[in-house]
Amino acid sequence: MEITFELGYALDTFYFLVCGAFVMWMAAGFAMLEAGLVRAKNTTEILTKNIALYSIACIMYMVCGYAIMYGDSIGTATAFLSSITGDGATGVAEDAATYAPSADFFFQVVFVATAMSIVSGAVAERMKLWAFLLFAVVMTGFIYPMEGAWTWGGEKVFGLYSLGDNGFSDFAGSGIVHMAGAAAALAGVLVLGARKGKYTADGKTIAIPGANLPLATLGTFILWMGWFGFNGGSVLATASVESANAVAVVFMNTNLAAAGGSVAALLIARVLFGKADLTMALNGALAGLVAITAEPSTPTALQATIFGAVGGILVVFSIIGLDKLKIDDPVGAISVHGVVGLLGLLLVPITNGENSTFSGQIIGALTIFVWVFATSLAAWFIIKAIIGVRVSEEEEYEGVDMSECGLEAYPDFTTKRS
Amino acid sequence: MEITFELGYALDTFYFLVCGAFVMWMAAGFAMLEAGLVRAKNTTEILTKNIALYSIACIMYMVCGYAIMYGDSIGTATAFLSSITGDGATGVAEDAATYAPSADFFFQVVFVATAMSIVSGAVAERMKLWAFLLFAVVMTGFIYPMEGAWTWGGEKVFGLYSLGDNGFSDFAGSGIVHMAGAAAALAGVLVLGARKGKYTADGKTIAIPGANLPLATLGTFILWMGWFGFNGGSVLATASVESANAVAVVFMNTNLAAAGGSVAALLIARVLFGKADLTMALNGALAGLVAITAEPSTPTALQATIFGAVGGILVVFSIIGLDKLKIDDPVGAISVHGVVGLLGLLLVPITNGENSTFSGQIIGALTIFVWVFATSLAAWFIIKAIIGVRVSEEEEYEGVDMSECGLEAYPDFTTKRS
Amino acid sequence: MEITFELGYALDTFYFLVCGAFVMWMAAGFAMLEAGLVRAKNTTEILTKNIALYSIACIMYMVCGYAIMYGDSIGTATAFLSSITGDGATGVAEDAATYAPSADFFFQVVFVATAMSIVSGAVAERMKLWAFLLFAVVMTGFIYPMEGAWTWGGEKVFGLYSLGDNGFSDFAGSGIVHMAGAAAALAGVLVLGARKGKYTADGKTIAIPGANLPLATLGTFILWMGWFGFNGGSVLATASVESANAVAVVFMNTNLAAAGGSVAALLIARVLFGKADLTMALNGALAGLVAITAEPSTPTALQATIFGAVGGILVVFSIIGLDKLKIDDPVGAISVHGVVGLLGLLLVPITNGENSTFSGQIIGALTIFVWVFATSLAAWFIIKAIIGVRVSEEEEYEGVDMSECGLEAYPDFTTKRS
Repeated sequence: MEITFELGYALDTFYFLVCGAFVMWMAAGFAMLEAGLVRAKNTTEILTKNIALYSIACIMYMVCGYAIMYGDSIGTATAFLSSITGDGATGVAEDAATYAPSADFFFQVVFVATAMSIVSGAVAERMKLWAFLLFAVVMTGFIYPMEGAWTWGGEKVFGLYSLGDNGFSDFAGSGIVHMAGAAAALAGVLVLGARKGKYTADGKTIAIPGANLPLATLGTFILWMGWFGFNGGSVLATASVESANAVAVVFMNTNLAAAGGSVAALLIARVLFGKADLTMALNGALAGLVAITAEPSTPTALQATIFGAVGGILVVFSIIGLDKLKIDDPVGAISVHGVVGLLGLLLVPITNGENSTFSGQIIGALTIFVWVFATSLAAWFIIKAIIGVRVSEEEEYEGVDMSECGLEAYPDFTTKRS
Repeated sequence: MEITFELGYALDTFYFLVCGAFVMWMAAGFAMLEAGLVRAKNTTEILTKNIALYSIACIMYMVCGYAIMYGDSIGTATAFLSSITGDGATGVAEDAATYAPSADFFFQVVFVATAMSIVSGAVAERMKLWAFLLFAVVMTGFIYPMEGAWTWGGEKVFGLYSLGDNGFSDFAGSGIVHMAGAAAALAGVLVLGARKGKYTADGKTIAIPGANLPLATLGTFILWMGWFGFNGGSVLATASVESANAVAVVFMNTNLAAAGGSVAALLIARVLFGKADLTMALNGALAGLVAITAEPSTPTALQATIFGAVGGILVVFSIIGLDKLKIDDPVGAISVHGVVGLLGLLLVPITNGENSTFSGQIIGALTIFVWVFATSLAAWFIIKAIIGVRVSEEEEYEGVDMSECGLEAYPDFTTKRS
Repeated sequence: MEITFELGYALDTFYFLVCGAFVMWMAAGFAMLEAGLVRAKNTTEILTKNIALYSIACIMYMVCGYAIMYGDSIGTATAFLSSITGDGATGVAEDAATYAPSADFFFQVVFVATAMSIVSGAVAERMKLWAFLLFAVVMTGFIYPMEGAWTWGGEKVFGLYSLGDNGFSDFAGSGIVHMAGAAAALAGVLVLGARKGKYTADGKTIAIPGANLPLATLGTFILWMGWFGFNGGSVLATASVESANAVAVVFMNTNLAAAGGSVAALLIARVLFGKADLTMALNGALAGLVAITAEPSTPTALQATIFGAVGGILVVFSIIGLDKLKIDDPVGAISVHGVVGLLGLLLVPITNGENSTFSGQIIGALTIFVWVFATSLAAWFIIKAIIGVRVSEEEEYEGVDMSECGLEAYPDFTTKRS
């Protein structure tokens, strides 16, 4: 091989690996964000869920998810499994690769985990741990890879229609990853019901503040940083002037969208509540990130900031609105990733009309949502029938840390809320 | 274009982006450091300040800061704004670029945020949140870009004299970023006054320990890691043997300076106080980092360690000294970034006499300090006149978290200090 | 030089630096993990130990460790010292380098710190701070570099026998770094004895839960992320198709081994204790990482997952077993890094019979263990004789934070365990 080919191959591979490591880091971000936003008594459990779901996602994606998503058909799952058990774990993308196949697997696998991480926050504080982990197996091994195959994998939806040919474009996954995670979360929340005491009989919403805001802030910063890998790596190449420029624009726009979202949410919360609401600023930053994720490479810097700001404003109203509907999402995940994920998809044609149309985006969004929501609902019901999904009222009152994990998160500290 | 040019362009771009992501990560470091060093009741507010200032810095630098700093003149701000609103956000540095212009913007913008982060710690626990954010707009959109234009932008100071021609050199910003941030902070602290109860009528200093030392330690480690990007990226190229060697030396020396600073501060605190003072070890590490930042590429490994150690010793005496002057800086930011920033500038001619002279460094330091301090003082006074800068005595006693943000940082925990 | 050589040199250097920064980040991981797993009253001290030991490791490795490990003989220490004090800190590896010598030093130095970090957790909550730091000087400046010279440095053990020639292979340091750290820790724990109240007179083990599980989880995620640099960087090159593929496989396998370890430990703990034990899931992930570290490049994805899972199961039994032997290791470091480190060495010949044999691995493991354990034991005894290693009973009861550091870690919070 030519030395310049080798260098390009090596640079693209290294770029994938660094971006993948950044996305893996998002697992820590979700863990800290969620641990900061739940009550002290439910912290150990949500930490356990986060490290376990990441691990399960990695294993399931290796076992079958990757083959379903990027194999020629589900049938190639077996072929892939033999390749990962064969020499050098070279994987599916072997032919005429311009980067290491294992790097492709590594980068894709951390995306699965991200989709699954979105679920854990929404069902926090009242779900059985093992019910959640069982769902993680189904979601990361089957539900997500199937819709991934239709979108990034280029397969027809049940052999019927092709999303890509119909003007659907989702650069790094506002819909494919984030809205999909939120759809699964919504199904879980509907099956599960709200936390005790969240909504009063006369229709009021009771605020249940998170126990550790520095952790939640740290989690947001981690996610912000990790998102550079999430979006930046989705250019899928960097070893040319054109792709390097694209990656750089993506980094810049991702950062500005988060900034726009954070400031907009802070301002709108100031107007609505009269205070500088930190949790809204955090969710605003995340909303900005989700909003830009469907297309971070074509907007200008100013557009990226504005798109992010729109996401930041939308998320505040969405969080308020979901509470009105008594959809109890302790960390705001459905709003951040679902509602703003949809926004992200709908923003694409504004700056990238070449690859997307509004109708294509809507069809794509519907396809993803209906598939993930319906299969998730089925999965949650089956799990409910077999082992149940909700802890007992007493366990919920005492906190799931003791009942599920047998360990307090902060055993040395005196807490004032049971 | 030749393939080797493309590869070099791609590598330099990727290097900028990775370094920039590391510097962005420093925003999390400042947030954690400051959240750990204030009292529990002022934690939500400082977290809010940190995420908001980072966001504001990014937006203001896009709107006008970058154009002021690197445009041919302030007049090009408009031109730049049209370029960021035009196709592909290619920015100022377009001509004959050897890396992506957006990567340059991304790398530079995170530096602005760093300068501003320094301010937030020094004014903690008694400043009005919105006064601070208003100052952030002025600092990141105007004050910092102006001095940046004179130094890294190569413009003459008000058209009068050129710092670079007079032997001023500041590799990664001991003066331009750190001392500048500290000058703005000092102005703020002087306008604001000390926290209630910090100094007694008979001249004693009361220690007000930080509420969460693991967070402060985490913040320091984050800053240490992020500094590899801060200094390493300031070589501005890596795609040749010469520049790669320079980047490697910078990484090595940055690490050793922090190590030297930490150990020296720990030892000197042991001698002075009889204990292993963790906060001094943390500030010592940061001081070592600031000390080497003005020139991390020319010292030997041993010199870097020694320079860091001198910074670590100086910071301990500076913190004690500022308290004697009743300049109340809850996190020691003025000492770490200001006093040691000046030290860093003065150390440059020892190892890099080719590009700097002591007189040049002093003139540069004075120029930066006078400009930033004077304009900041003016800005603080104007903000004070319009909306006030200090919370009420009662709000300060209760903690600014409730009055400014309406959210406790640790609502589940029983605290013993109001 | 040819431009393609320059580009390869630059890419390899940048790869080393990024990987090195990731490994440096592991220092934060150990600090958070250990701070989360000790009691509140011993937190400041363990944070101080962690930042100080990292700093000491960097300084000692510069002063003599690097020369001992990679110089032609101990005699070259002086030569190296003059090189680091000479122009450009080019170091030992200068001849015909394919990457920057300083990058090599930077990458190697963070490994020393890792080895030393392992010790701090095991001796937590009852050791004198300065005794620990004194040991850190000896360990990082002499004990570790000597065994490093025999293994990665290629020297004969005391001029007697060569480990490499006898079929010993340890890719990234399951034995050389992790088991070595654990051997030093074990010696320390034996000299020190168990914490008061850990084991009752009638032979029962009393659980002493960690004070802050979010921190411990964060630390684990940091270590997981940093390990990509630890193992990935140990390929020692990336600028060709072959080495890029190897680095990618290493990233993928490292991630999967951790996933396997975490899930396996969670399941086995569920079986043994009836609960989802978070601390076991965390230690399981770390065990998976240690297990794959001796050879992450030759296993398939599935093998890597299984090897990690075996590590995850082993660590649970090892933690229980050490408690039966009354070897008190508050964070499980000896089990994670020592017992599983040995496992990692023994797994190598399964997938890499070309470079290793079981007998070679056993001889290597014995050599490392005997050397590190014996010299550490001697060092601990000498330190004990001079300044003592254990704090007084009263200090231990009150917590070492006040006696050693004079600062509480959480002064604002009411704690319920003294």
